[in-house]
Amino acid sequence: VASSYVRQASNAKESRESIIKQLLEQRKLPQEGFSDSLIELLMQELALMDSNNFPGNVGVGEREARVYSALVSKRHFRLGHGIGRSGDIAAVQPKAAGSSLLAKLANALLLDTIRLTGIRSTAACVLLPMATGMSLALVLLALKSLRPTAKYIIWPRIDQKSCFKSMITAGCEPIVIENLLDGDELTTDLASVEAKISELGPDNIICVHSTTSCFAPRVPDRVVELAVLCKKFSIPHIVNNAYGLQSTKCTHLIEEGNRVGRIDAFVQSTDKNFLVPVGGAVVAGFNREFIDLVAKTYPGRASGSPSIDVFVTLLSMGASGYKKLLADRKEMLGYLSDGISRVGEKHGERLLNTKKNQISLALSLSTIQDVALKTAGQHESTELGSMLFTRYVSGTRVVAPGRRNTIGNHTFTNWGSHSNDYPCPYLTAAAAIGITKSEVDTFLKRLDKTLAKFKRKAAVENE
Amino acid sequence: VASSYVRQASNAKESRESIIKQLLEQRKLPQEGFSDSLIELLMQELALMDSNNFPGNVGVGEREARVYSALVSKRHFRLGHGIGRSGDIAAVQPKAAGSSLLAKLANALLLDTIRLTGIRSTAACVLLPMATGMSLALVLLALKSLRPTAKYIIWPRIDQKSCFKSMITAGCEPIVIENLLDGDELTTDLASVEAKISELGPDNIICVHSTTSCFAPRVPDRVVELAVLCKKFSIPHIVNNAYGLQSTKCTHLIEEGNRVGRIDAFVQSTDKNFLVPVGGAVVAGFNREFIDLVAKTYPGRASGSPSIDVFVTLLSMGASGYKKLLADRKEMLGYLSDGISRVGEKHGERLLNTKKNQISLALSLSTIQDVALKTAGQHESTELGSMLFTRYVSGTRVVAPGRRNTIGNHTFTNWGSHSNDYPCPYLTAAAAIGITKSEVDTFLKRLDKTLAKFKRKAAVENE
Amino acid sequence: VASSYVRQASNAKESRESIIKQLLEQRKLPQEGFSDSLIELLMQELALMDSNNFPGNVGVGEREARVYSALVSKRHFRLGHGIGRSGDIAAVQPKAAGSSLLAKLANALLLDTIRLTGIRSTAACVLLPMATGMSLALVLLALKSLRPTAKYIIWPRIDQKSCFKSMITAGCEPIVIENLLDGDELTTDLASVEAKISELGPDNIICVHSTTSCFAPRVPDRVVELAVLCKKFSIPHIVNNAYGLQSTKCTHLIEEGNRVGRIDAFVQSTDKNFLVPVGGAVVAGFNREFIDLVAKTYPGRASGSPSIDVFVTLLSMGASGYKKLLADRKEMLGYLSDGISRVGEKHGERLLNTKKNQISLALSLSTIQDVALKTAGQHESTELGSMLFTRYVSGTRVVAPGRRNTIGNHTFTNWGSHSNDYPCPYLTAAAAIGITKSEVDTFLKRLDKTLAKFKRKAAVENE
Amino acid sequence: VASSYVRQASNAKESRESIIKQLLEQRKLPQEGFSDSLIELLMQELALMDSNNFPGNVGVGEREARVYSALVSKRHFRLGHGIGRSGDIAAVQPKAAGSSLLAKLANALLLDTIRLTGIRSTAACVLLPMATGMSLALVLLALKSLRPTAKYIIWPRIDQKSCFKSMITAGCEPIVIENLLDGDELTTDLASVEAKISELGPDNIICVHSTTSCFAPRVPDRVVELAVLCKKFSIPHIVNNAYGLQSTKCTHLIEEGNRVGRIDAFVQSTDKNFLVPVGGAVVAGFNREFIDLVAKTYPGRASGSPSIDVFVTLLSMGASGYKKLLADRKEMLGYLSDGISRVGEKHGERLLNTKKNQISLALSLSTIQDVALKTAGQHESTELGSMLFTRYVSGTRVVAPGRRNTIGNHTFTNWGSHSNDYPCPYLTAAAAIGITKSEVDTFLKRLDKTLAKFKRKAAVENE
Repeated sequence: VASSYVRQASNAKESRESIIKQLLEQRKLPQEGFSDSLIELLMQELALMDSNNFPGNVGVGEREARVYSALVSKRHFRLGHGIGRSGDIAAVQPKAAGSSLLAKLANALLLDTIRLTGIRSTAACVLLPMATGMSLALVLLALKSLRPTAKYIIWPRIDQKSCFKSMITAGCEPIVIENLLDGDELTTDLASVEAKISELGPDNIICVHSTTSCFAPRVPDRVVELAVLCKKFSIPHIVNNAYGLQSTKCTHLIEEGNRVGRIDAFVQSTDKNFLVPVGGAVVAGFNREFIDLVAKTYPGRASGSPSIDVFVTLLSMGASGYKKLLADRKEMLGYLSDGISRVGEKHGERLLNTKKNQISLALSLSTIQDVALKTAGQHESTELGSMLFTRYVSGTRVVAPGRRNTIGNHTFTNWGSHSNDYPCPYLTAAAAIGITKSEVDTFLKRLDKTLAKFKRKAAVENE
Repeated sequence: VASSYVRQASNAKESRESIIKQLLEQRKLPQEGFSDSLIELLMQELALMDSNNFPGNVGVGEREARVYSALVSKRHFRLGHGIGRSGDIAAVQPKAAGSSLLAKLANALLLDTIRLTGIRSTAACVLLPMATGMSLALVLLALKSLRPTAKYIIWPRIDQKSCFKSMITAGCEPIVIENLLDGDELTTDLASVEAKISELGPDNIICVHSTTSCFAPRVPDRVVELAVLCKKFSIPHIVNNAYGLQSTKCTHLIEEGNRVGRIDAFVQSTDKNFLVPVGGAVVAGFNREFIDLVAKTYPGRASGSPSIDVFVTLLSMGASGYKKLLADRKEMLGYLSDGISRVGEKHGERLLNTKKNQISLALSLSTIQDVALKTAGQHESTELGSMLFTRYVSGTRVVAPGRRNTIGNHTFTNWGSHSNDYPCPYLTAAAAIGITKSEVDTFLKRLDKTLAKFKRKAAVENE
Repeated sequence: VASSYVRQASNAKESRESIIKQLLEQRKLPQEGFSDSLIELLMQELALMDSNNFPGNVGVGEREARVYSALVSKRHFRLGHGIGRSGDIAAVQPKAAGSSLLAKLANALLLDTIRLTGIRSTAACVLLPMATGMSLALVLLALKSLRPTAKYIIWPRIDQKSCFKSMITAGCEPIVIENLLDGDELTTDLASVEAKISELGPDNIICVHSTTSCFAPRVPDRVVELAVLCKKFSIPHIVNNAYGLQSTKCTHLIEEGNRVGRIDAFVQSTDKNFLVPVGGAVVAGFNREFIDLVAKTYPGRASGSPSIDVFVTLLSMGASGYKKLLADRKEMLGYLSDGISRVGEKHGERLLNTKKNQISLALSLSTIQDVALKTAGQHESTELGSMLFTRYVSGTRVVAPGRRNTIGNHTFTNWGSHSNDYPCPYLTAAAAIGITKSEVDTFLKRLDKTLAKFKRKAAVENE
Repeated sequence: VASSYVRQASNAKESRESIIKQLLEQRKLPQEGFSDSLIELLMQELALMDSNNFPGNVGVGEREARVYSALVSKRHFRLGHGIGRSGDIAAVQPKAAGSSLLAKLANALLLDTIRLTGIRSTAACVLLPMATGMSLALVLLALKSLRPTAKYIIWPRIDQKSCFKSMITAGCEPIVIENLLDGDELTTDLASVEAKISELGPDNIICVHSTTSCFAPRVPDRVVELAVLCKKFSIPHIVNNAYGLQSTKCTHLIEEGNRVGRIDAFVQSTDKNFLVPVGGAVVAGFNREFIDLVAKTYPGRASGSPSIDVFVTLLSMGASGYKKLLADRKEMLGYLSDGISRVGEKHGERLLNTKKNQISLALSLSTIQDVALKTAGQHESTELGSMLFTRYVSGTRVVAPGRRNTIGNHTFTNWGSHSNDYPCPYLTAAAAIGITKSEVDTFLKRLDKTLAKFKRKAAVENE
């Protein structure tokens, strides 16, 4: 092969290697995304750093990353050792330098990305291969080890089962603070929080557990004020920021909360913020020691699969790709908001005014017959919700009063509405990262048809 | 395309579909393994049952299994929703019938496989997408919720960090029972266990936490006798069976322990028993209710990746393939044992007599210079261990006295040896599932050379 | 798994199966493209129709589609039998109903797609797993078998080596007709063609071999007039339409040529028109019998790889996707044309006026120093071309007089320029299917810089 | 990540790179096969040498290796440019240094492998991305260009359609030499060959076209004696060695033929000798110039897919892997021979004595009712053959007299039997490379059952 062409190829190779070297040295999200071919090359290089891929390696331990199925081996890029070590999920494995490096890089890229979303002061983060609920439980267990005599968690109500369960699983006692109605919005009752702290005694409280991302008409908790309270009373503060990285509304609350008050950790899901399959959560904070403690609390090694997904995805996006996704989402929220408002008006309904929630929207269902809101068979979806799902719309929630739900020892009235007595039934829809204009258009068409059909049905039944 | 050929193809298709139908109906490990092409077809069919793969689906929820990277999507067979639901890791997801079915099938195949290994009475099991340590922690948290006032765990010493840490993470207080020396074997001190139970009071004890698979010269705990004690005192009993499914010695202890005494759950890793990448553990037991409680204790959904790996692998092996792996392993243990014994004798050492441990072996290092056993730099590996690792031998452990290790509040003397004062230093090697004859041969050659080199080195230094 | 979700999944499955059924029945390019997951499922289904994937198949023939490497098997979706049969590349293989069906579907989709590009009267086509040159040779061999005593081919000059060589390989004698200069355009000298036919005698002529797609300033041959001549003299007419499907200029010439005259076959590459890797060509025509004869002329079976690529790609595009690619290309040609014109003017050059060529453009290089146009070392690229290639611009050609090239017995003056004496040197660039706006922008920037650099260099050298 | 582990990883990396370097420098089949991970890495490196994978590359040519479908791109390891150049299939592409290197390496490894099979004196070979028949046609076209006035090909009869058609396609006139019966074997009639040469005149003969691998009871042609004749008369000699590399019987004939006589090229299929999907053939010879001429005869570039398959497969096998396959095949031939003989005797039939054919075997069918041998419907398979195919046995041929077949202008009597009047009907089966013992066992069982069934059926019909 002639030398001039090889020279060009070798220039290209050098430019690629310098990109990789830069990544390894700087450990920052690259400005522009990597091509899939470059990512695959990098994954190969990492895999070949693990002992199971050494030529001539023999294994006489109890775990040698032997993989039986070629399909399985392939899907893990031939990485088999997982991440972490007995001692610590963030520790390095002697047998697996490649897997260890990958896990560290994934954490480093995540840290950079979290800062990019607006939480500039973030000091450290760790990706846990467990979804948000279990990760919250681990954070709470870490806190409990620091405050062995405390038992309560102050928790402004949010009707999402796994975050409530995370407290039960960790053996804590949640103290539910009901929300206040402010216009159409459900918001944090700060006075009740402070009263409860005084009543129980700060030392008996493991932490305040607040929430940013949630379904309208609930809006993000008043995280800044809660942070100030926590600082005042020296109580730890954990923020459930499940899908909040995609909204500057949420990230600014956390950044500001830390600036003026206390936030020990904020936890978010990888799938909801980074468009990867379900499986991981990121625990981040403003103090490296606490994040290290959480990592050390995880006993033993763990699946490297969520780290692979996040690593590949962030490299593929690059900073510019991720920013574009965030900007597109914001634009789609406005577009969805206008559309729902328009469709709603046509059917005599109105978009609830929940401006503080910048991810999800709610449309009143005041004129809709009760039957549409009745739960339809198993799993408690409503007739209206089912009809939309049958029309290939996923993700809407139809919330009507009447459901009670008992989790652990606590019984919630009107579960699903974040409130004991919200004034009207409603339907929610979100503009989450990755949503496309054509999805919004199709949704609006199907929503319109479904509402119309319900009205006709109701008219017939009323004849 | 001519009809006779199509007819033959369609016969083949029917025979394939009947294989799949049988799998879905019987939910048993098939006798013969499936080909990769059949497995891929099945994975495709499952993926297309999830809403993110419905043609024309629009998503307006906060989690719609959108996957940014084609590389990532592909490696998950386009499954994105993970497994489980807010309430329960074993629950069905409305949006993800395929993922849910896959998770259920993986559990069903695992149950069948566990019975096949000899624990015939197993009633239920659940695959958790967390490695053994964290899974043990979850089991302990579930037990704590049933015994809220208890705080101690009786734990016969085994020097493996993550299982000790699982107890700390769960907020329990481990009571360490030192082992007895019986010939070369380190075994359970039953009298001390019983004395400790009486001393602390059965009601204050969360559980007895015993271990089967471990490194020689420690042998599996006397699980049967411990089970009898637990039954007598009405104390829960958890068995850490990390890589014990591969040895009938371990599985028979558990089956028999349940028959005559009490075992609430036994926990094992998927990677070590089923040749998949690190990432999952199976919690199994003889009482479906307790296993369901463990599943419900996990808050929220989770990665489906370990379920995919196990599902694909078990289908690929079939019962006959798995049995062959188990039989091969047993044969290789004998072969390795003979070989180490022979190499050892050549160098004036002997294979320790640890017959009750049917997975790992230990070779005395009595004639080896101290220097070989000194820890070499970071990570506390010995010179001898390092030299073997440099020769591409992974998995041996060189155990010499002198290491202290503090985990939580407990300090262990001679950490790594399961004992405060084992009579001699030694090197361990295991014949784990998947090991090949050629690996054993190569290991023995490298061991021989390394021991010889150390002796020469020592001779030179002594001149 | 609950029945309502399974029902929804099974609705989705039915809608998928009806899409596939429709494809198999109608054998038309679907309006909307298929998702990759659907395509993979279809490929799996096809693969499982081949005997090598039948469960329990045993093979005692000399060719049983055993594939050694899992990597290789995977990349062919486990298809191994190739396409065709000893007798005929379009024949069905008894052992391989799936491969055979795939090959037939690929041809059917291609036929539909060719019609869509504007050659509505196309009656049949066959995908050959050989690139355009060798496929042209096969067509010529088929024609020779019909006209055993003829030996000449009338060929308006086009400086592209493989099409000239196809005639030599087939054992024919090409009669080169030099082009006419019409304004900036090089076009067919019809009078010379007719004179040559009379001189040689129609019966001694195997065919007229014309060309549509070519590099400016040559424009597509006057195919319609040539077709009329061929009809008049009863001479076969073959059109080399290498990358012409992407331009309605080319496709309309062929459609119209057939309407008023004679065209026996037109041949195009799959990579250049359908964005697949190099490897296939499509021979199409207005008479099924002749196309069948070409297929039968191919002795034996052949690689199925180009059929797989085309099949997957056309399904992935759908009619709407392909139309969009064609429309985008057209738009990009205008954009590129404006840009080159602007950059050219800046440097004292002008875009040649070659409107009849709707794929490629030429920029005069009259003011550029000779040195830039000198061939630079091996492979005869010019300094200017090399400099652009080094700047990661591929595909431009810098054409300057002076190169002689002998192929077979024929020597071409000023090879590369389609002419013995084109008035000026020039640089060509094409807007081929798939080109993006950002590519055009980057190209224009690099072209500008490179031209500037050459002028500076020239100025320095002239000092 | 700690330095000692990284050092080990980097040792492993160096050892890998030295393996690759050695491959590139020596261009020999490695002794031991490469792991799939190493092969993938190498493919990645090669792909990244092609311009379409250069970071920031812009393409303004007519062919830029843009690939629309991610599925398609992936299956070609992101290589898109194919192999070869307008001028020559073995030429280097400026845009595609990686693809070009891959094609060269594939040829180099093939050359080494052909020598390893016993044809030690092979001087050069070229992999053509066309199956054997079309590759033979290209070789004949190359020969014709050297002997423009010759028109005949002397061809000892072998009833395989594509090799006969290759001569027709190339525009040659085959002279069929009927075989001699020698015991049970059909063998070359040397006297007739020599007589025919004299009759037609050596200068009018393009070549002698002999065959090695074939179905029993035909045996390999007397290649050595034919080679001597060709040398004597200065006639080119082409050997169709379709699947003969797997048998030393065939390879030694070719090596010896070249030593004492004349062989210009021998052609073999890649799928049948190297366990890759159908799609390529290797033209090899003892004179580099002639092989280069064949490569140059191919007009234009071509699919790189067969080169990828062969390259990956040979690397995966290594010399030791390929030798093992050859040895296993030989053993299986003996095993199959014994088995067929045994099953045949049970049913009153005998294994024909065709020792010179070391790949395939024939069992007489003298006692089988005529009906079993009648052709059953379309595609001319017999009832017996169909019944075996329905029982998932592929590859047997049931040969009975009575079929006439006309190809081109030649009509063959008793087509399929290589002879106008073979004494008895028979069934053939081959032990081709890759066949397993379990396949042979299953085949023998099914054969036994099928023969028994036919006898019962015949008995019933005779009642």
